[in-house]
Amino acid sequence: MKQLDSIARLINKFTKLPGVGVKTAQRYAYGVIDMSEADAAEFCAAIDDVKRTVRYCSECGNFSESELCAVCKTRDKRIITVVAYPKDVQALERASALKTSYHVLHGTLSPLDGRGPEDIRIKQLLARLDGVEEVILATNPDVEGEATAMYIAKLIKPLGIKTTRLAQGISMGSDIEYADEVTLARALTSRIEI
Amino acid sequence: MKQLDSIARLINKFTKLPGVGVKTAQRYAYGVIDMSEADAAEFCAAIDDVKRTVRYCSECGNFSESELCAVCKTRDKRIITVVAYPKDVQALERASALKTSYHVLHGTLSPLDGRGPEDIRIKQLLARLDGVEEVILATNPDVEGEATAMYIAKLIKPLGIKTTRLAQGISMGSDIEYADEVTLARALTSRIEI
Repeated sequence: MKQLDSIARLINKFTKLPGVGVKTAQRYAYGVIDMSEADAAEFCAAIDDVKRTVRYCSECGNFSESELCAVCKTRDKRIITVVAYPKDVQALERASALKTSYHVLHGTLSPLDGRGPEDIRIKQLLARLDGVEEVILATNPDVEGEATAMYIAKLIKPLGIKTTRLAQGISMGSDIEYADEVTLARALTSRIEI
Repeated sequence: MKQLDSIARLINKFTKLPGVGVKTAQRYAYGVIDMSEADAAEFCAAIDDVKRTVRYCSECGNFSESELCAVCKTRDKRIITVVAYPKDVQALERASALKTSYHVLHGTLSPLDGRGPEDIRIKQLLARLDGVEEVILATNPDVEGEATAMYIAKLIKPLGIKTTRLAQGISMGSDIEYADEVTLARALTSRIEI
């Protein structure tokens, strides 16, 4: 006896989510079967709601429910933090050490995957630099993130705008013993006087 | 800036799935935002479809799209395999070493969680034993699964029906070095002549 068609279809849909394989999808599908009718209906409504209302802010590229997002409407635009993805905005906002505006690139430069400067929102960033005093490049400290930050820095610095990068070093609460060498080397060369 | 309401709601819904925490739910919600409209609509349709069409077979308790499931309608009922959950039926069918009928208990006995014989489908099993020659107890080899199997065996054996349990031993492809002692002990006491 095979899996029922409707269950097989739902399993297949769950595998479309990031990082979900068949076994996990199966567990989720059984989870849906065990849900109350009301919970399942609310689940569908939430998916539908997000697809209907969430779009990207026309200025910064972050998630928004209107043409301009709440940050672009209200916040000071002298400092712009550049990130690769909307989820990075959430992470930075949770830390909330600085109240800056944002610019979401929607990707990083990646010659291997054929993603060049035209494929991410660099042009839109350059169009927003009027009156900007500092651009914080907050892409990930990996090969693609570094390359993207360096590329953008090269375009922006000649305009006389201060260009910074997130500090790199050992994480709070981490163990020096287990820190990787590259991180430790960066933490040493960027040491600060106390 | 907080998470948009609609996204926060979808994240909350994803946490209702088994084993999904907030971080994972967030990743799935962003996955939904990145989906095409069509994919999201199909996802909803699949959830809706499962909730509308899937119910439990009135005889064996397995997933079914009609009153009686395909197995109960067609398969020989002289051997019944008793499992705790519908997903176990799928696993046994994939192995498909034996074509038996099934009986899904929808749970195991668990005094700690207050689940007694009345809370799982034991009565329904006893009502199906007419003409049955063998009952295979295929509950998990853990404390609750063992207790459930023993309890059912005590009820069924006096009726003169052969009562068996899945063989326990080392898994195919596993390493004796890393097998736990209980499993190894069972494999030794249940050794077979070759």
